[in-house]
Amino acid sequence: MDPRIVEHAKILVDYSTQVKRGDKVVIQANPDAHDLAVAVARQVAKAGGSFTVTMISEEIERAKYDGADDETLKVFPDHVMAMTEKTDVLISLRSPVNTKAMANVDPKRRMITAKTTKPIFDLINTKRWVLTVHPCATLAQQGNMSLEEYREFVYGACLHDWEKESKNLYKMKEHLESHKNIRFIGPETDLYASTEGRLWEAADGKFNMPDGEIFTAPVEDSVEGKIYFDVPFLELGKVLEGVRLTFEKGEVVDYSAEKEESTLKQILEVDDGARRLGEMAIGTNRGIKQYTLNMLFDEKIGDTVHCALGMAYPECNGVNESAIHVDMIKTMHEGEVTAGDEVIYSRGKYFYEK
Amino acid sequence: MDPRIVEHAKILVDYSTQVKRGDKVVIQANPDAHDLAVAVARQVAKAGGSFTVTMISEEIERAKYDGADDETLKVFPDHVMAMTEKTDVLISLRSPVNTKAMANVDPKRRMITAKTTKPIFDLINTKRWVLTVHPCATLAQQGNMSLEEYREFVYGACLHDWEKESKNLYKMKEHLESHKNIRFIGPETDLYASTEGRLWEAADGKFNMPDGEIFTAPVEDSVEGKIYFDVPFLELGKVLEGVRLTFEKGEVVDYSAEKEESTLKQILEVDDGARRLGEMAIGTNRGIKQYTLNMLFDEKIGDTVHCALGMAYPECNGVNESAIHVDMIKTMHEGEVTAGDEVIYSRGKYFYEK
Repeated sequence: MDPRIVEHAKILVDYSTQVKRGDKVVIQANPDAHDLAVAVARQVAKAGGSFTVTMISEEIERAKYDGADDETLKVFPDHVMAMTEKTDVLISLRSPVNTKAMANVDPKRRMITAKTTKPIFDLINTKRWVLTVHPCATLAQQGNMSLEEYREFVYGACLHDWEKESKNLYKMKEHLESHKNIRFIGPETDLYASTEGRLWEAADGKFNMPDGEIFTAPVEDSVEGKIYFDVPFLELGKVLEGVRLTFEKGEVVDYSAEKEESTLKQILEVDDGARRLGEMAIGTNRGIKQYTLNMLFDEKIGDTVHCALGMAYPECNGVNESAIHVDMIKTMHEGEVTAGDEVIYSRGKYFYEK
Repeated sequence: MDPRIVEHAKILVDYSTQVKRGDKVVIQANPDAHDLAVAVARQVAKAGGSFTVTMISEEIERAKYDGADDETLKVFPDHVMAMTEKTDVLISLRSPVNTKAMANVDPKRRMITAKTTKPIFDLINTKRWVLTVHPCATLAQQGNMSLEEYREFVYGACLHDWEKESKNLYKMKEHLESHKNIRFIGPETDLYASTEGRLWEAADGKFNMPDGEIFTAPVEDSVEGKIYFDVPFLELGKVLEGVRLTFEKGEVVDYSAEKEESTLKQILEVDDGARRLGEMAIGTNRGIKQYTLNMLFDEKIGDTVHCALGMAYPECNGVNESAIHVDMIKTMHEGEVTAGDEVIYSRGKYFYEK
């Protein structure tokens, strides 16, 4: 087995979810993630955990909608809930079969399922869980790479000394929380927000792998200024490019996009919360050197910031509500991030690298 | 999708397990059985059931033994038990990753796991469940065929009118249970056993797919005579051929094999019960025209009988106990099966075909 798969598994089991003797573990895997599932299984067993493996498949999910009427979509899967109640750790290994398998399913029907299974997802959120990807042709293709290049990419992003990265992120958290605002400055960009009463979360590889970002929920009506997102992103099945937003009293008052402006308009009109920022964040993962239209990776690219329209995370004391949470990324090699009177990041250097 | 996969799924869901609205279903599948899992998922949803999918993999199972110490093997998977308690139907789709993945694991360690998970297997036995295979290269190779030939083979065995086959099997059950003994007569074969107080089970596709056999547990000390098993079979990792057994008062008193006689000796010496027959049965599936060293298929070949050394099924009122249950098959194109004074089968015809 590729020794990188073994190392990846060790990070997931020993660092991210810290499996210990007697833990009941669920390993979720797409069929193409089988090799990583084998490595994770061995590592969980080594740690003394008892595991079972569930299969994720976008095509199987799609088949459900093809077969079920709405009443069937409302049948609560007691058996899955019962398993979740007794589960300590969930390790999710994604190698999508087909990222477009659900493209032609009515979003209203998907909402029925989301509502039916919400208690299960809420319960999972109270457990130790981590989400990662195993390199596969589907994702390599979406990222515009060969499979071998994509493997390099994934392991470059994930196989880090996370204890060390965690320390830096917590230093940054302490720093940011000692101030009451945040400002992103750069080409065509000067965006300010109050962060008073809000918390910064250090995303240090405990729930996502790769990881490497620090995020907060800005005070909803305090966001002022403009920002230019120069990294393309995928939303509603479209690739949006060159999005520009202007905020007044927290609300988007002007917008444009170099590509897919009508999709941007659609996003902003979903609900009231969709016109406000639910998240402002700084990416710190220098192992991720390019975007691949996969937000699990893109939002963590080092020397970037990102903002999300829509739903805010309660763990940051955010209150903005929305059906959407759309992340948009800006590279900051030419930019600066300040908090109060302090420089947090400037042109290729985080404060702790000085 | 190959329309035969859809038909296979319909048999499993609508005939074998009779999924109905509100049922909680677990679909177990090897990664290579993904296509059949998609078809079964759609069919379960159509019937109104709510499903989840679990992944079976011989390599993942093996990785557990590579990682775990004996104490870890004893950790009871509460979470799997909790799911099983709430499950109505289990549909198991086998396309082994590698049938030899477990070959070098100490059988004593496998016994620890078997003991740990016994309550779960016992509970599954009280549910509606069915076991089948989805054609894959691994099984095609074991069966000495190309994948396309193996597909023909599997669907030839499974895609039957099972309602009709069930009627014939129940006719045969009624017939056999009206008599008190059974006799297999043919080349180098004349084997007699009492079946007084025993039941015959009609295996009509409810638990196995393919299916097509009728079996009983003979009265333990009543088996007399000799039998020549001319169909090769796989046991303890070896292919045994041309096994001849002679019985007196239910016990094997003489034995030989044309190939792997030492393995036959090993089987007979496992325990006291291993020298007695736990099963005598008649195969009726004319869609299976050759052996493939896979007992799910081989024991059901039409115009055959089989006997098993070892453990008897309690549902037949059998009492023989043993750690093993080794099926051995004999073709009967030149033979006859009688019960009491009646001919049940003779040279290519079951009594109901007269």
